[in-house]
Amino acid sequence: MKERFRAQPIQVVRLDGSSPAAEEADEVTVEEPLEIQVEGQSIAVVMRTPGNDRELAAGFALTEGIVHARNEVFEITSCLTNEQSTKNIINVALRDPGRFDRTKFSRNVFTSSSCGVCGKATIEAVQQQFPAISCAPAVGVEVLRALPARLIEAQETFQRTGGLHACALFDLQGQLLLLREDVGRHNALDKLIGHELLANQLPLADRVLLLSGRVSFEMTQKALAAGIGIIAAISAPSSLAVEFARANNQTLIGFLRGQRMNIYAGAERVTR
Amino acid sequence: MKERFRAQPIQVVRLDGSSPAAEEADEVTVEEPLEIQVEGQSIAVVMRTPGNDRELAAGFALTEGIVHARNEVFEITSCLTNEQSTKNIINVALRDPGRFDRTKFSRNVFTSSSCGVCGKATIEAVQQQFPAISCAPAVGVEVLRALPARLIEAQETFQRTGGLHACALFDLQGQLLLLREDVGRHNALDKLIGHELLANQLPLADRVLLLSGRVSFEMTQKALAAGIGIIAAISAPSSLAVEFARANNQTLIGFLRGQRMNIYAGAERVTR
Repeated sequence: MKERFRAQPIQVVRLDGSSPAAEEADEVTVEEPLEIQVEGQSIAVVMRTPGNDRELAAGFALTEGIVHARNEVFEITSCLTNEQSTKNIINVALRDPGRFDRTKFSRNVFTSSSCGVCGKATIEAVQQQFPAISCAPAVGVEVLRALPARLIEAQETFQRTGGLHACALFDLQGQLLLLREDVGRHNALDKLIGHELLANQLPLADRVLLLSGRVSFEMTQKALAAGIGIIAAISAPSSLAVEFARANNQTLIGFLRGQRMNIYAGAERVTR
Repeated sequence: MKERFRAQPIQVVRLDGSSPAAEEADEVTVEEPLEIQVEGQSIAVVMRTPGNDRELAAGFALTEGIVHARNEVFEITSCLTNEQSTKNIINVALRDPGRFDRTKFSRNVFTSSSCGVCGKATIEAVQQQFPAISCAPAVGVEVLRALPARLIEAQETFQRTGGLHACALFDLQGQLLLLREDVGRHNALDKLIGHELLANQLPLADRVLLLSGRVSFEMTQKALAAGIGIIAAISAPSSLAVEFARANNQTLIGFLRGQRMNIYAGAERVTR
């Protein structure tokens, strides 16, 4: 188990309500793209935690119906690094390459934007598309601490099944403006952003986004597309989410629970 | 808020450790595919909770960079139902259709297997690919109750960041055989299944799969691809996961916490 692939050291500003805010060393889960190829043809880019990549490619090939048994796999080779660069690409070579028809493989799979994507390239591609946050106002630490209870209260009104991700939009005084829930967290955020787009409210520069779960790269990217500068979450962010938020001048807060919070990016915007 | 779209009534066998097992009415979160089109061309199929579909399509179009402002959207129309069938399709019509280039749109998007997918069609397509579980052994209720603590214990060995989904494979006596973690739960399961494929251990007929989080349709589908007949989860399943498990003779257990569990499918395989 190569721990260095799974947890990445990071500096965070930790608030716990009693001691003064301190910048401390912490760790976040690593998230990086992996391009999965079959017979040298790109079939998917998945955002994953590095490690066990051969297993991931094998399992993906099985669960997507490309192979059905061990003896259909000839070999799985990764070209993770060379001297010039880090490449997150893995290739599944088949015992009988002629049986793989790329054109028939089109179900539920991420298509690749380019060969050889890596975290950096992905971020740069997105940065070209959506501008970084130019100015975002500050938000008070007590306002942030009050948000999770308001989310839970609002969720209880709507939710009965325990199976939904939620995201909520607040103003800088902590008033709940909009709540959306979905079995998929990307969908919940797209619904929230779509509502604001259709109401002609973009960019959401003076808003705080609260997420019920974890913060992946894609969540920070979607928030940036809507011009959201302050993202808070009940749970943890990934390494790439932190990297993306820092590169785009977003404030990113995780583990927002009780008096506690970790500020991973843009701490200057949280006023105490 | 149309609650009927979001929560679906369902019969479950509920165990709580004291009173006898009882079949009760409960609700699960609805999960259904939605095909998103732009100018009549399919660009994605997302598994989502119905409701606010126009917002979802608008937000998706924005966060994927297809539109950038409200005035670029001409109209969003859904053809959810007609007299013959239920179709989960929504179309974003643009003010300037000529600016949309489908060929440039290839980033991070599910490609569609067919037009007009609905839950049923998806299930049938998968059923053709992977056979239903023909026979799976029984597992004791006390064995099941012991699994979450073993998962947490094993996770604590590996995990330090609080940002990982886990899935674990147990034998019928409750012994932990394999644990995989990832920032994405689909990846964690693909890694676990891939390990077993490469070790030539498939099908996993006499195994119990434990998931740290929620059970979506895709998780039951991946389990079926590996021949897993018994799936248990700490959290809730979606409507489509339950439907899929029932159609494929899988046992599906949710909310496995302490003495409590809800059995959504295949309760005859849980011995008391």
